[in-house]
Formats: sequence, C-alpha cells, structure tokens
Amino acid sequence: MTEMYKKVAVIGGGVIGGGWVARFLLCGQYVSVFDPHPQAKEIIETIVERAENAYSKLFVSSLPPKGRLHFAASLEEAVQESDYIQESIPEQLDLKRDLYAGIEKAARPDAIIASSTSGFRPSELCQGMVHPERFVVAHPFNPVYLIPLVEVVPAAACQSITLDTVLSFLTLIGMKPLHVKKEIDAHIADRLLEAVWREALWLVKDGIATTAEIDDAIRYGFGLRWAQMGLFETYRIAGGQQGMRHFLKQFGPALQWPWSKLTDVPDLTEELIDQIADQSDKQSGRYTIHELEDIRDDNLVSILKALKQRNWGAGKIVASVEEKLGQSSAKSLTLSGTDLSAPLMLHSADIREEWADYNGHMTEHRYLQIFGDATDAFLAHIGMDQDYLACGFSVFTVETHIRHLDEVKVGALVDIKTQLLGFDEKRVRLVHEMINRENETVVATSEHMLLHVNTELSSASPFGEPLKTRLSKLSLGQETLAMPSFAGASIRPVSRAN
Amino acid sequence: MTEMYKKVAVIGGGVIGGGWVARFLLCGQYVSVFDPHPQAKEIIETIVERAENAYSKLFVSSLPPKGRLHFAASLEEAVQESDYIQESIPEQLDLKRDLYAGIEKAARPDAIIASSTSGFRPSELCQGMVHPERFVVAHPFNPVYLIPLVEVVPAAACQSITLDTVLSFLTLIGMKPLHVKKEIDAHIADRLLEAVWREALWLVKDGIATTAEIDDAIRYGFGLRWAQMGLFETYRIAGGQQGMRHFLKQFGPALQWPWSKLTDVPDLTEELIDQIADQSDKQSGRYTIHELEDIRDDNLVSILKALKQRNWGAGKIVASVEEKLGQSSAKSLTLSGTDLSAPLMLHSADIREEWADYNGHMTEHRYLQIFGDATDAFLAHIGMDQDYLACGFSVFTVETHIRHLDEVKVGALVDIKTQLLGFDEKRVRLVHEMINRENETVVATSEHMLLHVNTELSSASPFGEPLKTRLSKLSLGQETLAMPSFAGASIRPVSRAN
Repeated sequence: MTEMYKKVAVIGGGVIGGGWVARFLLCGQYVSVFDPHPQAKEIIETIVERAENAYSKLFVSSLPPKGRLHFAASLEEAVQESDYIQESIPEQLDLKRDLYAGIEKAARPDAIIASSTSGFRPSELCQGMVHPERFVVAHPFNPVYLIPLVEVVPAAACQSITLDTVLSFLTLIGMKPLHVKKEIDAHIADRLLEAVWREALWLVKDGIATTAEIDDAIRYGFGLRWAQMGLFETYRIAGGQQGMRHFLKQFGPALQWPWSKLTDVPDLTEELIDQIADQSDKQSGRYTIHELEDIRDDNLVSILKALKQRNWGAGKIVASVEEKLGQSSAKSLTLSGTDLSAPLMLHSADIREEWADYNGHMTEHRYLQIFGDATDAFLAHIGMDQDYLACGFSVFTVETHIRHLDEVKVGALVDIKTQLLGFDEKRVRLVHEMINRENETVVATSEHMLLHVNTELSSASPFGEPLKTRLSKLSLGQETLAMPSFAGASIRPVSRAN
Repeated sequence: MTEMYKKVAVIGGGVIGGGWVARFLLCGQYVSVFDPHPQAKEIIETIVERAENAYSKLFVSSLPPKGRLHFAASLEEAVQESDYIQESIPEQLDLKRDLYAGIEKAARPDAIIASSTSGFRPSELCQGMVHPERFVVAHPFNPVYLIPLVEVVPAAACQSITLDTVLSFLTLIGMKPLHVKKEIDAHIADRLLEAVWREALWLVKDGIATTAEIDDAIRYGFGLRWAQMGLFETYRIAGGQQGMRHFLKQFGPALQWPWSKLTDVPDLTEELIDQIADQSDKQSGRYTIHELEDIRDDNLVSILKALKQRNWGAGKIVASVEEKLGQSSAKSLTLSGTDLSAPLMLHSADIREEWADYNGHMTEHRYLQIFGDATDAFLAHIGMDQDYLACGFSVFTVETHIRHLDEVKVGALVDIKTQLLGFDEKRVRLVHEMINRENETVVATSEHMLLHVNTELSSASPFGEPLKTRLSKLSLGQETLAMPSFAGASIRPVSRAN
C-alpha cells in the first residue's frame, strides 16, 4: 500500500469525491482537493473521519501513516503538481468537458485524468481534449472507501500505459478495478442497478410493495447471495449437477413471461416522488443520514471481515491489503535502535465494539487475544518471521496467568508493555501489562510460558538463530529491570481450602 | 423454535424441496417427503447434512433435537396426517393443479397447502381447489435452510387464519416471511432478479462483459451493500442530508437515458446459451457444484454471523433463533436431579474453523472463550439468570491460570468438567478441565477467581440468593472430590531468575 506514492488531485468533494479523498489519504497518498462549495472542507473532513473509523475496525494491523490533505484555492493549484486527477463533479457533459479543458491548461501533459461518471462513455467525455490518451473512466461505488469495485473504462484514444497505471494504482489502494472492455452508457453495474430501479419503481407505483418491503426482499434474500457470488455463479449452483446449460434451459421460458415491467419505463411524476419519499421516511426516517451511514459502514466492515476470514470475494482484497500492512509494520520491528534496557512497547489495540459484553466492557477472552497478539509482536521482534516459520518451527503458549485489575470499555486504546523474564534452550517466560492509554492505568497483566516447537514433529525443540542471539541480547539489556511483583504468583485459596 | 411442532409434508425433493426438508427438520418438525425421483432420498439426505453442518457453524447454542424424517411411498401417505404441506414441484401450472387435487383427496380439509412457485399467482394456482381458503404461495430462496426470505402471497380466497398461521410458522423456523399484499407474476424478488437477468444477458450477448465480469461487478460492488440495506435505503443515504426526495430529483433524468436495454428482451438462442455456459465454465468450472455449494454456505454463514453481531437485517433473525435456543438449553440447567458429589459437565463446544490458527489448531484465546462460556454455564447452573442480572449484579473474573497440555484441532468436540474449589462472601474459586471427547485427553485446564459485583456501583458485593444457598449446597456436595494437582500452581522461573 505504501510502495507507490502519488500526488493525487480530487476535483469535486461531494459524497463520491470525499470518499475518494478518504481512500487516497488513508492509503498514504498526498491529496489536493478542489471544490468551490463553501462547506467542502467540512464535508470532506467528516467523510475522512468516518473512513478512518471504519478502517480501524476493518484492519487488524495498524494503518500506514496518513497522507497529507491539502485544500486548494483553485483548480490550477490542485492539479498543477499532480500525477493522477480524479474528477467527481455533477453528471453534465458540458460541465465535465469544460473542466477537462481547465485541467489540461494547468496539469502536466502526462498526468492521468479519471472521471467518476456513472453514465457517460469515455469517448464522449474526452472529445476535445488535447491529450485524450491519458483519460479514462474510473467509476467507484459509495462508500468509496469501503466498496472495492471501480469500473475502469478506456476510450479508443486511451494509451495502454494509462490503463495499466490506473489498474495498478487502484489495486494498490485496496480496490478491485474491473476493466470494462467495450464502452456503453452506464458501464456494467449501473445498468444492472438501473434495471432493478425501474422495476422497483413500478412495484411501488402499482402498489404491489412499499420501499421497505422491496428492501426486505433484497436484504433478507438475494442480497445475501450477491455479497459473495454474483448472478451467474449463483444460478450455476441452482442448475444442480448439470450446471449452467441446464439452468438456462429451465429458466429460458420465463424470459417470455410477463415477469418484468421493463418493456416500459415509469414516469417519475410528482405523485410517484411523493409516494416513494413518504414510504422511505416511514422506513428509515427514525435514523438521520449520519446514523444510516454509521450503520451501513459498520455492517460493511463486518461483512468484509467475514469474507476476509473466508478469503473470498471482497474479503480477499481486504486480506491482501492486510498482508501488505503486516509486512510494513513487521519491517519496523527490528532490534536495531531499540533501547534494550527498557520494557518493550510492541503492540497496541483499539477495543472494538464486537469485543464487548452486554455491559460495554471488553469480554474476558479478548484480553487474552490482545496479550496473544502482543506475544506475536514480541516473537516477530526477536526475529520469528515468515522464513523462520517456513522452516517448521513455531512457539506455543503452555501456561498463562491473567490478572484483571480494571475494566476497559469499547473505544479505549490500550498499549502493551512487555518484559522478558527469562529463557532457556526451549522456553521463554515473559509478562505483559495492558495499559489504558487515556488514564495510564494498568487494566490487566499476564504472565506466559512459551515453548519453542518443531511443528512437523509436534515436539519441543531448541531455539534456532536469530532468536537465540536476540533473546540473549534482550535478556542482558532487560536485566536491570525489576521483576514485577505479580510474576510467579498463583491463585490463592478461599474458604473451603483455607 | 420448539414451541410449535407440526407434521409437515414436503412434495418434491429437488434443490428447493430438499432445502425445505432441511429447515423443517433442523427446527424440530416431523417431516414426511414424497418425491418419485429414484435418487430423491440420497439428494435430500445430502442437503440435510449440508444444512446441519452450516447450522452447527451458524449457531453458538446447540440445536434442538432434530425432527423425524420419513420418506413416504405415495402422495397420500405423505399428506394424510399433515398440518402443513409445502409443494416444490416444477413450474408447470397443470402439473401443480393436478397435484393439489391429489392432495385435497388425501389430506385433512384444514391442512395448509403452500406452493414454492417463483412465478405463478396464487389465484391461478388455486383455481379448481375444493378448499382454496387454505392455499397460499410461500416462495423461498436457495439455499432455503440459510436464506431467511420467503414471500408469502395469499389469493383473494385465502382465509386470514391461514395467512396468520403460515406467517407465524415460518417465523418460528427462523425465516423472514414477506407478506406480498397484491399478487403479481413472479411476486417481488424474482421480478427484480428477472430485470437484472435480462440486462445481464444483453451485456453478455453484446460482448460488453463476461459472466465472471458481471459477477464481479455485483459481488465487489452493490452486492455488499444489498446484504444489509436494500435499494431504497442505500439511495436514501446517497441523497445526502436532503434524503430521498433530493435523490429522486437527481436520479430522475437517467430514467429517460439509454441506461438499460430492458425495453427489449434478448432471445435465448443456442448461440447465446453456448456463450454463457462456456463463460460460466471458465469462471467457475474449477469447482464442482458441491464445492460451490460448500463455499456459498460457508460464506453465507459468515455473513449472517457478521450481521448477527451487528444485530441488523438477516442477522437479527439469527439472533432471535439463537435466543430461543439459549433459553431452551438454559432451562435444562437446574440443580435438581444433579449428583452433587460429581464434577459438573455443563458445557461442550465444537472447535470451529474460524477459531483455528494457520496450523488448523485452536488459537490461544479461544481456549479462554470456551472456559469463559463454561464459567457462564456454571453461573447459570447456580441460579445467575436474567432476573438476577437485572437486579444489577454480575460476576467478573479477576484472575485466570491456563495450562495448555495438548493441541486441539478444528472439528473436535470438547467437554468441560468443572469443580468448585471454594467460595467466600464475594468470591468463587473454580477449575475447569477441557477434555477432547474423541480420545478423552485433557487438552487444557484453567483455574479462575471470580468476584461478585454490584454493576451499578462497580464494586464487590456479597452474593445474594439463590446463589449463596446453591454455592453452599454444591460445595458440600463436591467436598469429597480431590483437589486437582494443578490448583494453586504458578508459572515457574526459567534461566535468568533461577
């Protein structure tokens, strides 16, 4: 995620433009925005904050350093230094073409210009450009910082280097670029959406269903399927062992049945607008738009995490971003430059909502999860990396002693302080303290005995290099630290055994 | 889930009928199936097994006792004793009408008859029935045992008691019945699906996109949104602070644009069938249909669990089923009839896939999760129920000591043996042993000190009734048990501190 920095300009800072800003920024890019709207700064900052919150829940590893955000006073200022310019202004052909003319005057001739248009074809948009070879459609989906899909549509004039650069840049920032090979109005996804939309308008207009009922028909039904497999893969399964061809034969006749009103387009009359808006108020009006956005983002984060665990679809993208983050944070964990005589601070964690019990306090086993992550960070710190693991070695916990001293609430940030108490040929003994950053209170402590094992033989095995040397070094360095009072403690008897 | 047993007949045991069987059966119903297909038994058993596997991952609590499954030799035998009959035979009007005539001859006149039809209107289907007042469409979605949506469409002839019974029965078995108030060909969801399907066929036919690309446009994009909010709620957000009305004004003009080919229906020629089938093979052919079903079910389980954690949409349904399961298993936990001199066996757990590390072994903190659940089961056992908690009391863990003795793999079943070591006015000391049921090996032990607290004051507080009395009783009963050798142990020093 951080191998390739670009100077990015975002022109237009509404819901889509602001979403782009958030994604670029949180992936470490330098972003310059231009939007003459008086509240543009406020709107964009709100979206960035929202995205930051979502990312902190989505990714286990810490995020890379945020890029810099600059609010430009003019279009020229925004684009003149940029490598990549993303346009997200209203859907009016003339407006967009005029803007491109303005951009071409101020930007470098090789700066890439990408449009967020949902409907226009790239060849329509780039007419009149001096350098159409660097123009492309890059159509994202709201919320841009969470939905991976972006449709990339080149016009005939587009250079292949432009297309390649855009595809790899968008992949780098955690997206799933879908190269649309033949241009068409509304590209792919919005054509499908438009078909559903038109049919849904008929259903409301004809009084078959309300907006809430239509939404329920989606989110309790095929929406669940489509979060992981699309239309064709789902139907392939429905065809049973005989697959797609069989399904088509079965389903074919329905194409001639009156199963859709789409041979006709409904008029969006004032009456229909009122009907839909009223039903929508009834359905969702108890939430503000901000609350709905919170709900949506949290749901999307949960779904993406679920799919990540399955290493499937959109979850695969999250996993690959995660992997990149892990590598970059692992890189920063070396013994060089560390003060060897201080306790180690190698791990921090945000207490997530889903870690809480019904009281809003972190549930018991999540303490051990955080301590376990801190142990992993310690092991990485002394050199137990992928290469080491690949040789068939690992470290298992054989014994753990946890003391709970204070509660910790959702949203709190805790830091783990780690001290090496001792080691021998095959074992490491260490303690962690979990510190609430807000009030610097120790909320829990843990003591662990770890055993170095040969995973193939499933038996204890002596530490190899570089772990052995680094443990010695660290042990020597930490020798002057006092043994914590709780080390070696046991649970004392009560009543009966007294 | 178990309050209301019905005798259910399922006529037609394909993908949909078999899915119904699985859902009914796993929700404790008595199911009688009739399908003359020679492989019907095998097909249905495979689906039930698949569903059982999915449910064991989906629900934390154990499932209720499975209902009984009977394969009837004739239609008459299947329906004659039934309260509820679900028809899932091919989509041919005559075939369905003939079947209903046969059912009416053999079934009770008040037995409910429900059709899984995707397209026919109930008034078409019930023409010629002797008792059309007990007929309704109940259209489910594949896989029936996981997707909650079922469209319930009554004809004008339908009695309100039929409709009410069907709605509450389907709710009881964990579904989301959507009462479609005005009948129409293909109901609601399939009209929306048909619209997308027709548009998608054009996209393939015109060479704009392959089946894989269309699926990607869905599952990396709006599919993620639709798993949690539908079309209208999503667009309400897109309208920004000004909501739905504003969105409609913005979006309105696009209705007149050529964003959809749906004013035209594509011909499903042999050529187009070949094109789609070939693309689908290329896209998904590396998986068998069974593998695709496994992937789909695991993904759906993960998404449903993610939404359950958020208590939103389809996840809410899972949560409410879960709650019912929890209540029924909590009921079985009383002290009456227990041998008070034996260690307690109050909790078991399946080691789930998502609890494993990359080696396929249960990860560290999940041991504590299982021990924590066993502690909760112990507390429920001594009378800490919802009423007790509602009075503002709770029990917190203050100290934990875990010893890991053996690894445990995904799929293993572990039982927890619990022994009360002692208690005083505010504290309980206990140990758990985690036993792998397969080889009766102790894989881990834990010792815990628990503190009784007043949650409002956040301070330690003496046990109230009935906990006090039950602790005394249990302690007295367990007095003869030997103190486990590991109780009171501490982590011993290595090397440096030696």
